[in-house]
Amino acid sequence: MAEPTLWIGEPSFDLAHITHLELLTPCLEESVRFFRDVLGMVESGRRGDSVYLRGWDDYVHHTLKLTAASRAAMEHFAYRTVSPEALQRRVAMLERTGLGIGWTDGDEGHGPAYRCRTPDGHILELLYEVEWYQPTPETRPALKNQASRFPARGCNVRRLDHINLFASDVRSCRQFLQERLGFRLTEIIVFDDGSEKGAWLTVNNKGYEVAITEDQTGSRGRFHHVCYVVDTREEVLRAADICLEFGVPIEYGPHKHAVQQTVFLYVREPGGHRVEIGCPGARLVLAPDWKPIVWSQAERQRGQAWGLPTVATFHTYGTPPV
Amino acid sequence: MAEPTLWIGEPSFDLAHITHLELLTPCLEESVRFFRDVLGMVESGRRGDSVYLRGWDDYVHHTLKLTAASRAAMEHFAYRTVSPEALQRRVAMLERTGLGIGWTDGDEGHGPAYRCRTPDGHILELLYEVEWYQPTPETRPALKNQASRFPARGCNVRRLDHINLFASDVRSCRQFLQERLGFRLTEIIVFDDGSEKGAWLTVNNKGYEVAITEDQTGSRGRFHHVCYVVDTREEVLRAADICLEFGVPIEYGPHKHAVQQTVFLYVREPGGHRVEIGCPGARLVLAPDWKPIVWSQAERQRGQAWGLPTVATFHTYGTPPV
Amino acid sequence: MAEPTLWIGEPSFDLAHITHLELLTPCLEESVRFFRDVLGMVESGRRGDSVYLRGWDDYVHHTLKLTAASRAAMEHFAYRTVSPEALQRRVAMLERTGLGIGWTDGDEGHGPAYRCRTPDGHILELLYEVEWYQPTPETRPALKNQASRFPARGCNVRRLDHINLFASDVRSCRQFLQERLGFRLTEIIVFDDGSEKGAWLTVNNKGYEVAITEDQTGSRGRFHHVCYVVDTREEVLRAADICLEFGVPIEYGPHKHAVQQTVFLYVREPGGHRVEIGCPGARLVLAPDWKPIVWSQAERQRGQAWGLPTVATFHTYGTPPV
Amino acid sequence: MAEPTLWIGEPSFDLAHITHLELLTPCLEESVRFFRDVLGMVESGRRGDSVYLRGWDDYVHHTLKLTAASRAAMEHFAYRTVSPEALQRRVAMLERTGLGIGWTDGDEGHGPAYRCRTPDGHILELLYEVEWYQPTPETRPALKNQASRFPARGCNVRRLDHINLFASDVRSCRQFLQERLGFRLTEIIVFDDGSEKGAWLTVNNKGYEVAITEDQTGSRGRFHHVCYVVDTREEVLRAADICLEFGVPIEYGPHKHAVQQTVFLYVREPGGHRVEIGCPGARLVLAPDWKPIVWSQAERQRGQAWGLPTVATFHTYGTPPV
Repeated sequence: MAEPTLWIGEPSFDLAHITHLELLTPCLEESVRFFRDVLGMVESGRRGDSVYLRGWDDYVHHTLKLTAASRAAMEHFAYRTVSPEALQRRVAMLERTGLGIGWTDGDEGHGPAYRCRTPDGHILELLYEVEWYQPTPETRPALKNQASRFPARGCNVRRLDHINLFASDVRSCRQFLQERLGFRLTEIIVFDDGSEKGAWLTVNNKGYEVAITEDQTGSRGRFHHVCYVVDTREEVLRAADICLEFGVPIEYGPHKHAVQQTVFLYVREPGGHRVEIGCPGARLVLAPDWKPIVWSQAERQRGQAWGLPTVATFHTYGTPPV
Repeated sequence: MAEPTLWIGEPSFDLAHITHLELLTPCLEESVRFFRDVLGMVESGRRGDSVYLRGWDDYVHHTLKLTAASRAAMEHFAYRTVSPEALQRRVAMLERTGLGIGWTDGDEGHGPAYRCRTPDGHILELLYEVEWYQPTPETRPALKNQASRFPARGCNVRRLDHINLFASDVRSCRQFLQERLGFRLTEIIVFDDGSEKGAWLTVNNKGYEVAITEDQTGSRGRFHHVCYVVDTREEVLRAADICLEFGVPIEYGPHKHAVQQTVFLYVREPGGHRVEIGCPGARLVLAPDWKPIVWSQAERQRGQAWGLPTVATFHTYGTPPV
Repeated sequence: MAEPTLWIGEPSFDLAHITHLELLTPCLEESVRFFRDVLGMVESGRRGDSVYLRGWDDYVHHTLKLTAASRAAMEHFAYRTVSPEALQRRVAMLERTGLGIGWTDGDEGHGPAYRCRTPDGHILELLYEVEWYQPTPETRPALKNQASRFPARGCNVRRLDHINLFASDVRSCRQFLQERLGFRLTEIIVFDDGSEKGAWLTVNNKGYEVAITEDQTGSRGRFHHVCYVVDTREEVLRAADICLEFGVPIEYGPHKHAVQQTVFLYVREPGGHRVEIGCPGARLVLAPDWKPIVWSQAERQRGQAWGLPTVATFHTYGTPPV
Repeated sequence: MAEPTLWIGEPSFDLAHITHLELLTPCLEESVRFFRDVLGMVESGRRGDSVYLRGWDDYVHHTLKLTAASRAAMEHFAYRTVSPEALQRRVAMLERTGLGIGWTDGDEGHGPAYRCRTPDGHILELLYEVEWYQPTPETRPALKNQASRFPARGCNVRRLDHINLFASDVRSCRQFLQERLGFRLTEIIVFDDGSEKGAWLTVNNKGYEVAITEDQTGSRGRFHHVCYVVDTREEVLRAADICLEFGVPIEYGPHKHAVQQTVFLYVREPGGHRVEIGCPGARLVLAPDWKPIVWSQAERQRGQAWGLPTVATFHTYGTPPV
């Protein structure tokens, strides 16, 4: 296999950041309680069967939309472009791929969005117009350079950090994000047979915003997890204490990933989705000529940074469950 | 002046730890909200005009009693003895001093208590019988070796750590605690003229449980502050963030004391009392022949550990205000 | 089985704290480098085939003596009494048990010591006279209430916290420490068949200073680990980062014990001894009537606090290896 | 005054990040010892009267060049562009401003650089070609996605974060960076008379990389400070402990800025430069339409985030001293 590259094609800066995702849940109010009371997120609106939430330093109206449904699934995730023009450029490119779906009128908190599918079938929206979160008297921060008040409740997660797609075909999803949307590849797992087992991509200085890992059940288009972050590794440990107190099942961690060095705690929210409380530390990718880190099969078999083996469910459990 | 000594008289182990204090407040419900919602304490009972509270790892029924009154004052503080016999021994000694007051029937959460006065007039209770805190379904901890659930609310203070008496005469109060009650002196400030400006005393392995500092207004028997602790210095900084968000006035800090090296944040609760959120770190006094640290006038003029000058109000503001 | 009790017999306060241990190592200089450069301890002397070390806040001359030998073993551990009289009282009691060995003349850093054996054969010394550590110009602290300068090197371990004895018979060792030396039992694991699998004991306000756990190889008198502590859980994670960088094998952790709630990292020093870098947080046992926490077989099978199963080597690996 | 804007002119992404600065020092070896032993930086080369250093996670050959000179001054600072073409574009623009100086052949660790002046006279270099740091056996990291080994020495600063220019005219410097180099303005202090007292600018997702504050002595082109960062606020407190131990003068802090919310510690290195050890936390500016935060005169008079007044020397002390 050719050496993986940071960019496929010309560098572009059309995408700004991941801006939200929508999770379907079979037990809406319990899921809301988890994200609000255990994670410490702020409820910023409701419409129909949906509840909108955000971390205290997320500047947009919401980064998480929870919608009642018969089963858990990630309905879509969304990226904000850097400008209206950048949005138009990307839509034009997507329409040529056969993976475009079309425009929606928007939703609470954002304007028109263009939907497309990854090769594995995950739905991705692109949009530019967003509503900035307007604090209420209860959520107004003391410092004006902060999106809203520190909640002092539960795990106090700060902001949406990244999502992890579960894919039957990591490579095609990875190439799609790089070629069609200008994602940069920062780290990747490539096994001895050349197969890609995981890929970490970004559109900004965060080390990654989307991870794609292999679904060993062979299912297509499933969801692995969403990660909200705190500022310190200690707060990840405290999150573990809090999950223990609240009866939230801990699947894995706290420990530190070798890949990206994120300190992690994986739990299950009541609807069944895997949720990570993470700390990426001050890890930023600033080099314009970053060379993707390639992890070999042998290197991955050493487990996580401090030696913990990867939990088996990481390769098979996703939402919707199969 | 003779060199200050750890013990005055024979070593004794009659006292176990500070167990509670009662603060009078002119705005009871606001004070309760401060201790419960901002500090994260647990309300464990109410009786008449009083509300009882504790930190999540305080094992007793309460460590703080708040009582409605026309003005802020520290009504009394209380020590638990190591046994009923130790209590009797100490009462017998106190009765000979002329500073004894007499027995009370006890209160919510504890049995009979013997009251006495410090030479400056602060009221101190000794008691042995206490009610251990019984968790409710909402406060039951996941781990059985913990007094109650981690609240995940506000500053999450863990336990009562110490109080600071404000005194017109530091030396006589200090000697009283050493001679009559078996306190050990761990650190002391002695100025060039031989006057004692502050004294830190303990009855166990904590570096101190009672501090006595000079009230430069010359008032007698006032209260300087109570300190509840968190586990890390980061949590003291977070407490400052939270106080800022909740509009709680910060008087001093966060910074680190030279004396005892406690990392501190001093704020004012709505009733007017100074409250410290502190972190003593892992600082323990285990040596049976510890030599009291004597801080000279010149040394104190260097300010706190990292150089911050002591705030002027520290020498004049206490409760009741004058 | 009768319910385990805090004290066996009358409360006594004769012992002050664990003061040192001696580890035999087949590779002295490599072991020294580990404790000095990786853990950040201070070398305070050498004599013959021995090197003396301490953490930056240990007040005594040394808390660890490393001695060259053909194989790894814990030669002895030592307790300081609260007074010369307390030492005499305890020696008198030990001489009646048949487990007394006799007096030694002392060593670098301490005076005469009386040796005895636990029922499993571990050697324990009692002593009172110690030499306080005298800082050199390089180790003199900026604050006079600190034993020596913060080293800013390696893991910066603060002080000796506890040791863990490996025993063929937990109960008899536990009873010996309680009955003969006045240890208090704070936590214990008792299986359904009444067998004791682990016991945690203290002589002061620390939750424990000696742990005794069952050696499933049936060997007698082996050593499980020594623990040096840092102030925060974050520093335990950092210790894991540092051990990874220095090629120190990580056996287990970082994670949080259910028993005592210590956050732990277990590694192997070059000589083969298991070493813990731990954080006990602010966990103190102050209640004079503490009821020992009894963990059942079912409770222990749930793993550590956040769910990690106990590593198998914990039940079989000790020093000397078998 | 018109409302300050994020961009002046079209958004551009030509600059990647600040890549190094050169400090002149009258005591080279003492300055080296400070940055290496106290801050924990890595020496990566020497040439002539210069020593090159970097933080453990700086990916370039060096981020700090120290050069022996008769007095302290910031000789130049340097930005890396995102591509060779971006460098040519910017040079072409600078040549039209009259502030261009010309090309240099490069230095240890980087290729040709184009020099220009800010309106206040600070020298700024632009370059693209850099040498990535090549670890030695002693600095090779255990994890391949890390620039070099965590040093476990001193303050362990991670990477160059930002510099603060001292300027007689904040506005003209600020406008120069925005108009000519595509910097984005994220926060600014504007007094009632319309004068700009401070401006914070970035070229990537960090909240700022260059601050410009008003030099109240009226001197032109001086330097205020350089900031290296650690991952947590606790490490900033630990840096204060370490500076206290090493006799490094603390000028200000630790405390938290209201502007940008950086937790800071300001010290003086032996050569006289002000150095900040800071923690920006997870604070990122991801919004493509961020509105610069404008701090008024009244707001600034409230002091820093937790209430500490700004130290007077902040407005007058810079290098070279006057």
